[in-house]
Amino acid sequence: MSAPEVITSLQNAHVKRLVRLRARREREQDHVILIEGAREIARAVSSGVPLSALYTSPDLHSPEARDLAPTLRAPTHELSRAAFEKVSGRENPDGLIALAPTPHVTLPEPAGQAVTVLLHGLEKPGNVGAILRSADAAGADSVIVLGRGADPYGPNVIRSSQGSVFTLPVAVMTEDEAQAWLSERHFTTVACTPDADRTYWDAPLTGRVALLLGTEHEGLPEHWRRTDHSVSIPMNASRGADSLNVATAAALMLYECARQRRAQGAG
Amino acid sequence: MSAPEVITSLQNAHVKRLVRLRARREREQDHVILIEGAREIARAVSSGVPLSALYTSPDLHSPEARDLAPTLRAPTHELSRAAFEKVSGRENPDGLIALAPTPHVTLPEPAGQAVTVLLHGLEKPGNVGAILRSADAAGADSVIVLGRGADPYGPNVIRSSQGSVFTLPVAVMTEDEAQAWLSERHFTTVACTPDADRTYWDAPLTGRVALLLGTEHEGLPEHWRRTDHSVSIPMNASRGADSLNVATAAALMLYECARQRRAQGAG
Repeated sequence: MSAPEVITSLQNAHVKRLVRLRARREREQDHVILIEGAREIARAVSSGVPLSALYTSPDLHSPEARDLAPTLRAPTHELSRAAFEKVSGRENPDGLIALAPTPHVTLPEPAGQAVTVLLHGLEKPGNVGAILRSADAAGADSVIVLGRGADPYGPNVIRSSQGSVFTLPVAVMTEDEAQAWLSERHFTTVACTPDADRTYWDAPLTGRVALLLGTEHEGLPEHWRRTDHSVSIPMNASRGADSLNVATAAALMLYECARQRRAQGAG
Repeated sequence: MSAPEVITSLQNAHVKRLVRLRARREREQDHVILIEGAREIARAVSSGVPLSALYTSPDLHSPEARDLAPTLRAPTHELSRAAFEKVSGRENPDGLIALAPTPHVTLPEPAGQAVTVLLHGLEKPGNVGAILRSADAAGADSVIVLGRGADPYGPNVIRSSQGSVFTLPVAVMTEDEAQAWLSERHFTTVACTPDADRTYWDAPLTGRVALLLGTEHEGLPEHWRRTDHSVSIPMNASRGADSLNVATAAALMLYECARQRRAQGAG
């Protein structure tokens, strides 16, 4: 299985393919995702993602990568430091990259007071990844990515989610699919928009809740604003602040859901 | 004042200086900061920051930059598109960069229930900028940067703060200076650490509060943990989530301060 020789040539077919797979259309064509970093690979594997190949460069290993590598079961290729740096998307690579088939996630049927997050049109991988990380930490049940925003399995989303994209159920849906899925399951929809009169502290966020977030510039399209509740996050406008980063807004909404559930349990 | 000719040479002295000033030590040596982008320049000017030079490339102007440029009073130099792209730190520059003397901020004396945020050892400009933006929106009174972390006036902090670094009082202090400043003004200190038993929802965050945040990996040093309160942000560990981004944690703490103040006012 494992090639005994170390890949050093930047013209090697594996090296060229890994570089190519940094582009979304190439990953889609090959039905693979590219997972870089020991932490992210460990979380993918522990979530049941099967690895189809492993690329390792021992000279670059972090302590975590050194411990993890021997435990991974996949055809393994060793790369020289220079070859690995060529294929890495990181400034300080830890010497591990894996390939895996693109996951096909079916969202779990919501139980009780499920919380799901819907992302509309978010294009920055850093924001999408940060929201996945916060949703995972806050105990949300799932995240739905609407249409053609950032690829939730893109390397930069995987990285900024710190692997939460593998542990939290994340589905890509069309707007129609999402609306049907939510209404069939009796979700209360809550749009987060800067112009809403009601603050997010004042809206009832217990029960089965879907939080809708759009981009900072464009917000949500009109038909996604016709929700059960519209809420805003209060802002101190005295110095000119007029917006929050969308990942910050998402974290505030998610943790307000958690706070209200806890208060309800205590009350 | 204004040079009538357009700077096109990448070897021009202005171009070379602007490139040089992307390095912190060069800015410190020259006692200047570099402000890129119409939004950021507008917020600096509205906060009383005097511009010492303006670099403009009309071909690249966004609508906001086109409106702002004629209102700015500073020696102005026009750059060709290629020359501007050489000096810009952005992927999609809007054709405006200004220089200004490094601000020297004295923190305002806290009144009533002031909230200040202390950042210890944060090195990522994106995180520091995001915290400044959230602190501004949440209505915090000031931010104190301890020691030698990210330069709060670095181009990437300015950018990710969206100019909040100019509207919110931000001071760099040694640890001793900060401890003296806080204790003389009777701040209640609240450390945010993952291992605290008490959640941030349960700690009293009204009154005059200083929120302390360290890095995700190292947290706060021991002597900064001996605070009035230590609080944690609850995390759903069932899927392996074990940390939040520090800027997310800061936003949650800041908005919990705001929520408790509002509840107190209503109660």
